Amino acid sequence: MYIPKLYTSPFPYFAASIVNLAQATYGRLYGALEQPLSQNSQTVAFSTRKMAKVTFALFGFGNMGMAHMKNILTSPRASVKWVVRNKIQEAQKFVQDYSLSARCTTPDNLEGLYNDPEVNAVLICSPTSTHEPVIRDSLLADKAVFCEKPITDAIDSTAACYDLAEKVKRPLFNAMHRRFEPNFCSVREKVLKKELGNLRLIKVTSRDLAPPPISYIKTSGGIIYDSTIHDLDMSLWLAGSQPESVYVSASAFDPDIASCGDYDQVVVTIKFKNGVVSSVENGRVAPYGYDQRLEVLCDKGMLQVDNKRSGLVWEHLAQGSSVPPIDSHFTNRYPLAYAAELEHFLDVMQGKAELRVKKEDTLNAMRLVRACQKSIAAKGPVTMET
Amino acid sequence: MYIPKLYTSPFPYFAASIVNLAQATYGRLYGALEQPLSQNSQTVAFSTRKMAKVTFALFGFGNMGMAHMKNILTSPRASVKWVVRNKIQEAQKFVQDYSLSARCTTPDNLEGLYNDPEVNAVLICSPTSTHEPVIRDSLLADKAVFCEKPITDAIDSTAACYDLAEKVKRPLFNAMHRRFEPNFCSVREKVLKKELGNLRLIKVTSRDLAPPPISYIKTSGGIIYDSTIHDLDMSLWLAGSQPESVYVSASAFDPDIASCGDYDQVVVTIKFKNGVVSSVENGRVAPYGYDQRLEVLCDKGMLQVDNKRSGLVWEHLAQGSSVPPIDSHFTNRYPLAYAAELEHFLDVMQGKAELRVKKEDTLNAMRLVRACQKSIAAKGPVTMET
Amino acid sequence: MYIPKLYTSPFPYFAASIVNLAQATYGRLYGALEQPLSQNSQTVAFSTRKMAKVTFALFGFGNMGMAHMKNILTSPRASVKWVVRNKIQEAQKFVQDYSLSARCTTPDNLEGLYNDPEVNAVLICSPTSTHEPVIRDSLLADKAVFCEKPITDAIDSTAACYDLAEKVKRPLFNAMHRRFEPNFCSVREKVLKKELGNLRLIKVTSRDLAPPPISYIKTSGGIIYDSTIHDLDMSLWLAGSQPESVYVSASAFDPDIASCGDYDQVVVTIKFKNGVVSSVENGRVAPYGYDQRLEVLCDKGMLQVDNKRSGLVWEHLAQGSSVPPIDSHFTNRYPLAYAAELEHFLDVMQGKAELRVKKEDTLNAMRLVRACQKSIAAKGPVTMET
Amino acid sequence: MYIPKLYTSPFPYFAASIVNLAQATYGRLYGALEQPLSQNSQTVAFSTRKMAKVTFALFGFGNMGMAHMKNILTSPRASVKWVVRNKIQEAQKFVQDYSLSARCTTPDNLEGLYNDPEVNAVLICSPTSTHEPVIRDSLLADKAVFCEKPITDAIDSTAACYDLAEKVKRPLFNAMHRRFEPNFCSVREKVLKKELGNLRLIKVTSRDLAPPPISYIKTSGGIIYDSTIHDLDMSLWLAGSQPESVYVSASAFDPDIASCGDYDQVVVTIKFKNGVVSSVENGRVAPYGYDQRLEVLCDKGMLQVDNKRSGLVWEHLAQGSSVPPIDSHFTNRYPLAYAAELEHFLDVMQGKAELRVKKEDTLNAMRLVRACQKSIAAKGPVTMET
Repeated sequence: MYIPKLYTSPFPYFAASIVNLAQATYGRLYGALEQPLSQNSQTVAFSTRKMAKVTFALFGFGNMGMAHMKNILTSPRASVKWVVRNKIQEAQKFVQDYSLSARCTTPDNLEGLYNDPEVNAVLICSPTSTHEPVIRDSLLADKAVFCEKPITDAIDSTAACYDLAEKVKRPLFNAMHRRFEPNFCSVREKVLKKELGNLRLIKVTSRDLAPPPISYIKTSGGIIYDSTIHDLDMSLWLAGSQPESVYVSASAFDPDIASCGDYDQVVVTIKFKNGVVSSVENGRVAPYGYDQRLEVLCDKGMLQVDNKRSGLVWEHLAQGSSVPPIDSHFTNRYPLAYAAELEHFLDVMQGKAELRVKKEDTLNAMRLVRACQKSIAAKGPVTMET
Repeated sequence: MYIPKLYTSPFPYFAASIVNLAQATYGRLYGALEQPLSQNSQTVAFSTRKMAKVTFALFGFGNMGMAHMKNILTSPRASVKWVVRNKIQEAQKFVQDYSLSARCTTPDNLEGLYNDPEVNAVLICSPTSTHEPVIRDSLLADKAVFCEKPITDAIDSTAACYDLAEKVKRPLFNAMHRRFEPNFCSVREKVLKKELGNLRLIKVTSRDLAPPPISYIKTSGGIIYDSTIHDLDMSLWLAGSQPESVYVSASAFDPDIASCGDYDQVVVTIKFKNGVVSSVENGRVAPYGYDQRLEVLCDKGMLQVDNKRSGLVWEHLAQGSSVPPIDSHFTNRYPLAYAAELEHFLDVMQGKAELRVKKEDTLNAMRLVRACQKSIAAKGPVTMET
Repeated sequence: MYIPKLYTSPFPYFAASIVNLAQATYGRLYGALEQPLSQNSQTVAFSTRKMAKVTFALFGFGNMGMAHMKNILTSPRASVKWVVRNKIQEAQKFVQDYSLSARCTTPDNLEGLYNDPEVNAVLICSPTSTHEPVIRDSLLADKAVFCEKPITDAIDSTAACYDLAEKVKRPLFNAMHRRFEPNFCSVREKVLKKELGNLRLIKVTSRDLAPPPISYIKTSGGIIYDSTIHDLDMSLWLAGSQPESVYVSASAFDPDIASCGDYDQVVVTIKFKNGVVSSVENGRVAPYGYDQRLEVLCDKGMLQVDNKRSGLVWEHLAQGSSVPPIDSHFTNRYPLAYAAELEHFLDVMQGKAELRVKKEDTLNAMRLVRACQKSIAAKGPVTMET
Repeated sequence: MYIPKLYTSPFPYFAASIVNLAQATYGRLYGALEQPLSQNSQTVAFSTRKMAKVTFALFGFGNMGMAHMKNILTSPRASVKWVVRNKIQEAQKFVQDYSLSARCTTPDNLEGLYNDPEVNAVLICSPTSTHEPVIRDSLLADKAVFCEKPITDAIDSTAACYDLAEKVKRPLFNAMHRRFEPNFCSVREKVLKKELGNLRLIKVTSRDLAPPPISYIKTSGGIIYDSTIHDLDMSLWLAGSQPESVYVSASAFDPDIASCGDYDQVVVTIKFKNGVVSSVENGRVAPYGYDQRLEVLCDKGMLQVDNKRSGLVWEHLAQGSSVPPIDSHFTNRYPLAYAAELEHFLDVMQGKAELRVKKEDTLNAMRLVRACQKSIAAKGPVTMET
């Protein structure tokens, strides 16, 4: 069998496959997205301390920590020097299993980590309540920060984290994964370039397979803050305008969730200042899969991002035809997004790119969350403060 | 956002995601395939020298070498100790970039490698002409062998390699990747279990994007040996019977290929002793993508494995609707197969499984290649020797 | 070629093909829908004057008139005796071309028609402004009425028409075609039977190819009344509950439409008393086709009615894959619905069924239209009067 | 709701909807196919006796007779004056039910029909054994003939029928329906225009739902003659070349069919003189639907005609996603083809077109059938006589 060469890539080794996939699919996608940067290359911060390899300290080691670890292990531009975990034995076993030279510690014993000059960046996958002190201490120790969303759970403290990052001139990266998903990126690029004319309507469908346990619900901050925020952020990212007003219809079909004062199904209508409308539907129950779809209607056409399916087998029987099921878990739906997040962060660290998720992006999403919560309380539309 | 647990998996860490994907999609797929093994666990060879981690020497470092390297880097059960490559600088750069502790050498300087007692297994991704001596020397040095297909380019020498492997009691693994692709595995399992009744017809469609250079064609051994062998092997694997006769219609549309005495489009009809017919179509030109489809017709239904598509975006315009393109490269089509190959080989090394590709499988495919070549020459069907 | 028998059908001749199609697709669909009727067969009105063949007078002869005419010509249960049209020559030419024995007349010369005792039913496809007098005169002349929606453009006069129909004991059929579309019927049946558990969410997407001329817009009554009413009616039909409140976000992207005080894109959120939410999106611009989709989310699964495509050809090129376009005209999208409307009306006329669209259905849709218009004016949700 | 005008059509009334559908889907399809005719309009035979309306005598009244009757009833260019059927009561009931002015008779009493000067054309849907005398008598009575395939069951008698038609200067139309199916026509037009470069490969999949009764099998003439002939004709129609050789692999999975000396699954490989290869697969068993697919591979792309599905509902459950089933009956799969056949025949009768299925087309298909039968007997490829 003849083995043709993959598309040439500026990225070495495995990272290439991610970029190539995107290139093969989406044409000049990456180039296009980075175009603004090359035009404003003088604005790229953090570029002075260029480095061959970024050395991480990793906080937390759940699904997301593991996903990022896998990408670091297969990147020639990154390595892990510290792993922080309460259950330190699990971290130690991992490091041993992979014959890594990383050190393990617990969250109450971080001095060595912060003082380690080889650590350039901290990657935070620990629970939200732990974020603020780790971000602050990391920045003060002159480390860059790659943080699983949200930065913190309050607008003020989030803004303060960003201010500190600016002060110490270190990047603070809010890893909003959907902004890095190649299909969503491709849609946004076509919308920005007006390839299908003017944008009119955004429709986001976002349904989890099954609700989390009630113990989680109770401390989640509510469905809007906990889950819908991703759909609100995607609307903001795509609309190309500031929101003018928002109306939320919220339902609680599950009596246990209702008894917490929370909801399990919301329909949000966001009106933007440029006339674009976003209709967001987010829910906790979709037993057939992790249903994540996007649709944008422009005056010359329509784009859809369909669900990802976990297989390629069609079965045809007398009683009907069945198709591969919809992927049921976000680690299967968004692996390319997580990989692209890391690539982007490494680019930022190496002075090749500017942060694509900025302070205002993070704060705008949090403000929209707050307006949605008000709309539910007021049972009417809420006008955004300007 | 609540992060639900992935399905429980007996495999640790990242490997889990591969298995989970398969489990989520195909139910008891892996369990089912390994069931015969657990029933005959006394027949599992090589199990005596159970080991925590398999240490590889990697020969060759092209697309396939890189694909396997990525899987080794993310496996807790495997590591690489040696990399063999003519262009030793490239290997050295890789090892340096990833901060690996592996050593690099050239094909003419292998003594250290073969004498290294830490090396348990050799992974051969170098050109076919190099296979036989590496296999022999590795086996004689008491290493297991994971070999990119084919073992060698002749039936006799291939049989001899297997005989040597049996003699030294080391596994010789012919990595026929399609036998590890989860969708094909799922189809085969349903066929074996007669979930759709009795198998009648197998249809394999297999088209490369574009022909290789003529220089490659000249030394390729011909399209049947170079390319169709995968489709022939898949037919053998699925049919559950020995072939009775085979007829090939071969065409050469490209005059350069014709001038080499080779073909760029073949249609093969294989009749099996149990009455099953396989209709294989294999070609060198499909500019729209790497077209890899399977269809099986049983008397109660039909199964199809569709192409993999490199994206999820549908675009609807006045002039029509377009869908994501078909993946154009085998490294994008078969990554799960390559990962499953490694997992299987590690299972074999750790005494958990028996080799799924056996000596007879390899020889049967080579015999069918030879019969196809005879059919082209004779312009008629060829009866298989029994 | 062997010609197998079609499924046995209680309907004679061609009508069978429609029913068979539905039966083949949707199992016991028709039986199921008519089950309530057989249980309450004593409630079937109009059944006393059973007749072998229904003789129609047809008012109007545009797209819809032609569609119904085609179904009458191929039905053994129906015939046309009169055609009413301003441009009488067109009607006469048609009658002549088809060698029909029907008479033609103009709207100002209807005495002969109303006095014709052979005419059992009047089929109204003329403009809405003409409906009320024709309905009244037809009912008073003891004819049944099959009326293209809407009955009239005001709630009071519509109610009065129904009251008259009840008084003269003749059926007045509001032909809401989507309630007869087999795919929508199939979804509704599954929802009513709770095959997928409890209904949570209805999502209706409804986009015209291109806006009508401004002259039409000016007298259309506005997008909600003119177009969205179908989506509102479908929501009412599916929800199994009365609406509690409704919120409309309306946009006018086309400046000409805006200058008429009308809108070309609306997003409607209806909350029903049983907690079900319907999210309706209706617009005037979708240049890629007549986009008519439905989605219902239940707590055990989800059902989608996809668009109809006007072909079966997939084209795969190096630049991508294209699929058959979405049908662009409602006469291509809804032919089975129009045929089923006629079958249903004939069943009603022959005492075999009760009207499936009742007075309250018609008035509820009109009330919801009014509430939507109020919501646009008030820029807030409107609570429905009980 | 605004009702946009359908595309302008040169065809009046309902016929327009068929043409419009094709136009909407396939662009200049019909225009393109008729272009050669307008260029050579002097070659159009039968044009002297132009007529406003074609009056048919219909022989046979099964599924196909009914399908054609429906199209005649909705055409302004055609009417039925005689219906011939053994069970004359059924024909009489139909005529009465539809209030037609047609006369009914039995096959042994045809003098009145043949002598009726108003009858321009005979439409034959009766069993094959009856074809030859009806064709001869009709032609001798100066009637045109529209004949369900085959003309007769022998090459000699078929050729003789064509010779007689030529002698009396009346059209003899062999209604090979697939040559009129809009999707297949669209593929052929693209192939003829080389829109995707040069044709390389044709793949025809053709599977009936279930085998006919053994009584039918016994007199069917064998699967090749009875069923595969359509796939052979389609290959001839698409290939643009004469066949050079053919090889058939035939299997009999059903022991009853085997005991008749017949087969229920054949795989045919046809090599054409221009190098194109057609791989045909035809079988009697596909319980999931009437599986009718076409694929053509060209050197710049690939075209597929997918199956038709009898609905639009997708159902997503925890156990998987199901899609609408494949249509199970040819009257649902090919209605547009039957309608286009009639339109074409009416065009021929009115001097607007030349017969698209010619004597040589019919004889070529029969010759290929014979070669296939020889290949089965010889168990080897058969070279076509030139």
